[in-house]
Amino acid sequence: MIDHTRYLSGAARAYEESAIRRIGAMGTRVPDLISFAPGYPAPSTFPWDELRAIATELLERRDGNVLQYGGTRGYRPLVEQVVHALTGRGVRTTVDEIIITTGSQQGLDLACRVLADPGDVVFVELPTYSGAIAAFRNLGATLVGVPQDEDGISIQGLHDEIDAVRADGLRARFIYVTPNFQNPTGLLMSARRRLEVLELARQHNLLIVEDDPYGSLYFEDRTRVEETRPMKADDTDGRVVYLGSFSKTLAPGFRVAWLTAAPTLANRVELAKQATDLCSGVFDQRIVHQAMARGVVQAMAPQLRTLYQEKCAVMESALRETLGDDVSWTSPRGGFFLWARFAPQVDDLRLFDRAIANRVSFVIGSAFYVTDDGHRLARLSFSAPTPEQIVEGVRRLGRAVAELSSPSHLHAG
Amino acid sequence: MIDHTRYLSGAARAYEESAIRRIGAMGTRVPDLISFAPGYPAPSTFPWDELRAIATELLERRDGNVLQYGGTRGYRPLVEQVVHALTGRGVRTTVDEIIITTGSQQGLDLACRVLADPGDVVFVELPTYSGAIAAFRNLGATLVGVPQDEDGISIQGLHDEIDAVRADGLRARFIYVTPNFQNPTGLLMSARRRLEVLELARQHNLLIVEDDPYGSLYFEDRTRVEETRPMKADDTDGRVVYLGSFSKTLAPGFRVAWLTAAPTLANRVELAKQATDLCSGVFDQRIVHQAMARGVVQAMAPQLRTLYQEKCAVMESALRETLGDDVSWTSPRGGFFLWARFAPQVDDLRLFDRAIANRVSFVIGSAFYVTDDGHRLARLSFSAPTPEQIVEGVRRLGRAVAELSSPSHLHAG
Repeated sequence: MIDHTRYLSGAARAYEESAIRRIGAMGTRVPDLISFAPGYPAPSTFPWDELRAIATELLERRDGNVLQYGGTRGYRPLVEQVVHALTGRGVRTTVDEIIITTGSQQGLDLACRVLADPGDVVFVELPTYSGAIAAFRNLGATLVGVPQDEDGISIQGLHDEIDAVRADGLRARFIYVTPNFQNPTGLLMSARRRLEVLELARQHNLLIVEDDPYGSLYFEDRTRVEETRPMKADDTDGRVVYLGSFSKTLAPGFRVAWLTAAPTLANRVELAKQATDLCSGVFDQRIVHQAMARGVVQAMAPQLRTLYQEKCAVMESALRETLGDDVSWTSPRGGFFLWARFAPQVDDLRLFDRAIANRVSFVIGSAFYVTDDGHRLARLSFSAPTPEQIVEGVRRLGRAVAELSSPSHLHAG
Repeated sequence: MIDHTRYLSGAARAYEESAIRRIGAMGTRVPDLISFAPGYPAPSTFPWDELRAIATELLERRDGNVLQYGGTRGYRPLVEQVVHALTGRGVRTTVDEIIITTGSQQGLDLACRVLADPGDVVFVELPTYSGAIAAFRNLGATLVGVPQDEDGISIQGLHDEIDAVRADGLRARFIYVTPNFQNPTGLLMSARRRLEVLELARQHNLLIVEDDPYGSLYFEDRTRVEETRPMKADDTDGRVVYLGSFSKTLAPGFRVAWLTAAPTLANRVELAKQATDLCSGVFDQRIVHQAMARGVVQAMAPQLRTLYQEKCAVMESALRETLGDDVSWTSPRGGFFLWARFAPQVDDLRLFDRAIANRVSFVIGSAFYVTDDGHRLARLSFSAPTPEQIVEGVRRLGRAVAELSSPSHLHAG
């Protein structure tokens, strides 16, 4: 066997493994593990009966197009549904601005390919979605982190970093943001901050990539729907590339998501996608289209909002009871994630080792930083486990924290 | 609206549209068009009843994993089936060498990302699959074409081009070949030539990307199964990255294919895929797995071989009757394509215009060249149209050729 490392591209040598995926893989090897790691929707919410009826009918009709190659932009009636759904959220768009993508992860990859050359700068929130970090870095982008406060990405921080980047002679391309229930912090960017980021992008000739998988999963007791209004809705000059997905609101196994951008950009994204996978799964798109046409997705949304709010409440209450002052967090107002901050002496990697020993997992905070930060933090997903698993998982997490604080527990636990 | 062209990456500015996809899109706008353009499998072969039974059972079991995110490498039992199927074709491999991809198009994109940096040289056959040209060029690779003879890619041509590339100070990375029923020529590379290419790659420290979507679709009257033996089967030092697909042997709408490479390379391909789409469609993979487990795919293969051989014969006979000496070709021994060569005065683009006017389409020969060649050639797919459509389509093509030869026909046809 030859030494294959010498055949790797420079980009491939630099690839970093996604911490989330690595931790997910680990989960399959620990028996009876309770996982707060992946951002998986609750499988209890999958509409099995409706999907079975849809799949059966689609295959009964023997329409060859259902299993054939499809157009790169996606199944047209599904594209039209996306336009309609976006209109309902205040986003005026047209079919020539939509590309169906193989999950939003593909949207991140394609957007970066079309907007940034290797070495170009992309601004990201500190912390930000680790899958976006991987997608952008794999394409050679230089990631510059900008701090967040409770209202979202810092405007002053953006100004400062943009100035610094330009002083360094680098080319700044776009700002990547997740305004609704950010991954990993769960933060909801304020309406005012959204407008300020748009205005700043205008001033500095930057584009914005807005990632919005959780927008419809707001907790109704704490968040008004108007507060989730996409930045794209106020994008008067076509500066925002918007990513949406059916992965969190129907099921991720179909890999159906979409990208919305001005026609000139959408045309290039289409060409990039052509060469990347020709088209997204056609049968999957037909199923999602029918799930929209029959109102299945729409009917699920209020139930999902209630379910995830309840699960979040269970986790918050369990954390308070079990860990008390050893952990703090900003209460999520929607989405899947609680961003837990531990005492200064807690290191996320060491905590993770103890957690795995106690059969509970999470994603280490540092995985979401493009700087060397986040070591006191952990992303706890409350979306997939049952309430009972959440309570038991937090109990295990409590043991892990205790073991870290007093090493004598290591052999007593 | 801002001027978005100034926001495009250098790569995106250079994207070329796939001629096949453009022509495919055109097809939807011409009423009653007979299309010899896309390499679509015959929809009449889709096993509707079996797929309906499989989909129904998968959704009845309410196993959350069926609709959840899945591992980046793919659904493990499907990976094991791929290993088994490859063993049957003489390829010894293991699960740690397989990545399930979102169609083979993704395999091309990922392989090139992992093996070539922008500017690096990839050797391709003249002509070659236009989707590979797009995938490699979009990633900034420099494509160098090597002529083919009836036995496949020219060894002397490869030697010459490798020397020239190295004399230019460029870095040569891999040779892309489609030994079985090449797209677009339909050529079957001889067994001897396969071994010679392997040996040449060894001498020059190059890898090989072997694309094999049509290997099991040989015409039994003209081709022995041994002649389709993948180069990967004789790859003793892990030099071949092999791409296989279920798109032509089951259905393309599922977007399920695979890449086989030495573990070091497969690990990097996994990381590249993680950042590209996280995982391929999970429901799709489960369906394909069941279609393999129940022997559906295996049972289809002999029927597909017979069907496509018959369709090919219909096209060949129609071409002889209609066009006589105006067209010549090497008789396909498998696959989906007939590579038609017209008289010297015929230009593929002009012929295409006349063909569309006569409601028949094909892919222009020049779309498959990385050089300015192929203008007398056309790729005619016999796979998707019915025998009656093939006969009528060739009749229309004959009219188009006649109109080109004597312009007075233009208004008489």
